[in-house]
Amino acid sequence: MAKTIPADSVGLVGPELIHFDEPLVLRSGSVINDYDLMVETYGELNADKSNAILICHALSGDHHAAGYHDAANEKEKPGWWDYCIGPGKAFDTNQFYIVSLNNLGGCAGSTGPSTINPETGKPFGPDFPIITVRDWVNSQARLADHLGIEQWAAVIGGSLGGMQVMRWAISYPLRLRHAIIIAAAPKLSAQNIAFNEIARQSITSDPDFHAGRYHDHDTYPKRGLTLARMIGHVTYLSDGAMRDKFGKDAIKGNFGRDLRTGKLNFSYEVDFQVESYLQYKGESFSGQFDANTYLLITKTLDYFDPAVDFDSDLSKAFAQSNCKYLVISFSSDWRFPPERSKEIVNTLLKAKQQVSYLEVEADQGHDAFLLPIPRYINALKSYLGCVAAEFDEQFDEKIDAQPEDQGEHPNAG
Amino acid sequence: MAKTIPADSVGLVGPELIHFDEPLVLRSGSVINDYDLMVETYGELNADKSNAILICHALSGDHHAAGYHDAANEKEKPGWWDYCIGPGKAFDTNQFYIVSLNNLGGCAGSTGPSTINPETGKPFGPDFPIITVRDWVNSQARLADHLGIEQWAAVIGGSLGGMQVMRWAISYPLRLRHAIIIAAAPKLSAQNIAFNEIARQSITSDPDFHAGRYHDHDTYPKRGLTLARMIGHVTYLSDGAMRDKFGKDAIKGNFGRDLRTGKLNFSYEVDFQVESYLQYKGESFSGQFDANTYLLITKTLDYFDPAVDFDSDLSKAFAQSNCKYLVISFSSDWRFPPERSKEIVNTLLKAKQQVSYLEVEADQGHDAFLLPIPRYINALKSYLGCVAAEFDEQFDEKIDAQPEDQGEHPNAG
Repeated sequence: MAKTIPADSVGLVGPELIHFDEPLVLRSGSVINDYDLMVETYGELNADKSNAILICHALSGDHHAAGYHDAANEKEKPGWWDYCIGPGKAFDTNQFYIVSLNNLGGCAGSTGPSTINPETGKPFGPDFPIITVRDWVNSQARLADHLGIEQWAAVIGGSLGGMQVMRWAISYPLRLRHAIIIAAAPKLSAQNIAFNEIARQSITSDPDFHAGRYHDHDTYPKRGLTLARMIGHVTYLSDGAMRDKFGKDAIKGNFGRDLRTGKLNFSYEVDFQVESYLQYKGESFSGQFDANTYLLITKTLDYFDPAVDFDSDLSKAFAQSNCKYLVISFSSDWRFPPERSKEIVNTLLKAKQQVSYLEVEADQGHDAFLLPIPRYINALKSYLGCVAAEFDEQFDEKIDAQPEDQGEHPNAG
Repeated sequence: MAKTIPADSVGLVGPELIHFDEPLVLRSGSVINDYDLMVETYGELNADKSNAILICHALSGDHHAAGYHDAANEKEKPGWWDYCIGPGKAFDTNQFYIVSLNNLGGCAGSTGPSTINPETGKPFGPDFPIITVRDWVNSQARLADHLGIEQWAAVIGGSLGGMQVMRWAISYPLRLRHAIIIAAAPKLSAQNIAFNEIARQSITSDPDFHAGRYHDHDTYPKRGLTLARMIGHVTYLSDGAMRDKFGKDAIKGNFGRDLRTGKLNFSYEVDFQVESYLQYKGESFSGQFDANTYLLITKTLDYFDPAVDFDSDLSKAFAQSNCKYLVISFSSDWRFPPERSKEIVNTLLKAKQQVSYLEVEADQGHDAFLLPIPRYINALKSYLGCVAAEFDEQFDEKIDAQPEDQGEHPNAG
């Protein structure tokens, strides 16, 4: 029996593996001779290719942002940003052509540490070069070329995705009209880097890591990756969100009591719900994510510094951009708190850029950017409505400019 | 050549190992037949034994709170709260008799997982029972008996030390006049427990842990304990404190650049100062602390719940206390933030207790309680000046009450 797919879903979708055979020179100086990107698209590209939106994913995201892959699987969850993407949704697929990819170095189909190195016939593993946000954006620009998209209507991303958006605006000023930067920061703080480094050390100190060559040893650093994800996960949630999740009294645990007998049962076993929750989250993540990719992407985060070519003055970097900006932050996000988003906003203003800013009151911490919070979604919907109106206007202008006897609908082309 | 010891230091001190041979029944139901506590004292106990202060240490603290152990070692650092304890200091040894101990289960001389189990001739290791804050306070009450101290002038502690102070006030209402609770919380939050659990898993997943019997395997879970401490350390510092420590631009790292050549040098090696700092802190800690004690004390923290016998109503617990309170918090402490101290204060007020509260503006995070911040130290000094005035008054009253011909100085007794 086929499952029921909601009417406002993009429905069944299939990713496409796109091959690029022009060598990509990375920021580090390394070269990737050829590579694949796993891509999904939703909606239709209009005739003048002005309605395309690029979605940039964060640490654990991938190309599967909306819809379903398997008509038969009743339990399948939709893509990670499904509540935003679809007919009539904030990223309205009746108006926009949405492009979502798994970034280079990822582990969901695009070329990365877990794909086969053609030179050795084995997974790249630790030989895969370090990728920066700039490298990602360069590879995404090639993807745009491949799709025939000269200019994105908008580039959108949260967290690490927001960093890619900033890099797009700086590196390719003429190739996007709107930059939507959500729950991001202009650069990592020492605390951010510290948590990343602890996560990396959790992985690399797992005896099953084998200096990244776990494939060769037919093993996997599951414990280390589980720990790394647990650390990450705590930083994605606010203290308040955890309190809400685990009972109003901070912890809905047994405080060492056997709940049936009421007797004390102190032990080193997991006995608070928050512990088993994190353990579950960590383990389920470690079962589907590549440890080398985790190391790679946390380093990508650490190295992000869009001001590096501009005497460390981010306003100089932004000054060369040519798009409009929307910056969104969440009140309880302590990984990339509102103060960091305001740094971006203030720097944009200093660079005389046009920017809108919204701080959403939300108790869910950094995770909020992935959640269907009405004020947030409504703001995205409203902003993108204006973005759509712009290319509708262009469309109207073109119609007006055409000779009356050639009044064919451009979308027919 | 003997080193120069500052004039306001308590000088050279020596710890004393005190044996207790009456069995201690623990909260868990386990029994410790006999045990040792490592104790240091500073100042002199007055004749009516009214000038004693008990200092309760936090996770990584011990009995050595002030002064020096080694006259010959020029590099020796003084005790961990030295700037507070000494002649003329906040805890003025000219007025007070200060008692500081290594808690039961610790690893600085008191009976704990790393001391020899007389039944097996080997270290207790994981067989050492789980200790609660209440157990500590019961053992401290026996120490008070041993020292002949019926009532403490004050019991003082920060972080986990502050939790011991609360337990003293509730369990032994007649045995203290002042409770000074610094940078603490009435109970751990889910986030606090989460970080503790991740630290524990770092230790227990180290292959050198051997289920806690690393002594038997002649090894030590150094990597796991280093990681655990790194996690802890990040939560002790504020984001701002880390920014200040590692350069105004958040990170004084090379961002992947070789600082001599300016060339890019991306790698998985440590390349930010914050990473090497944490690594150093973690490793130096792991070289001197017992992993089983770390597990034990984090569980002690998790299980702390002074309201447990009072229908989870902490105000009922406090209602039976009989001392005055001083509660201090630090503005940038996100491990036990000011909101948690205010919970204590509000609950004390509900319980009709007398409480003073100070929130110190300080950028150093949770670590602030261990640092010589003038406003903080001055507040302690001022408060303890009033505490000293009380027993001076008692002293004056006693003098007044004595027949004139027996006017011997009470301290002579």
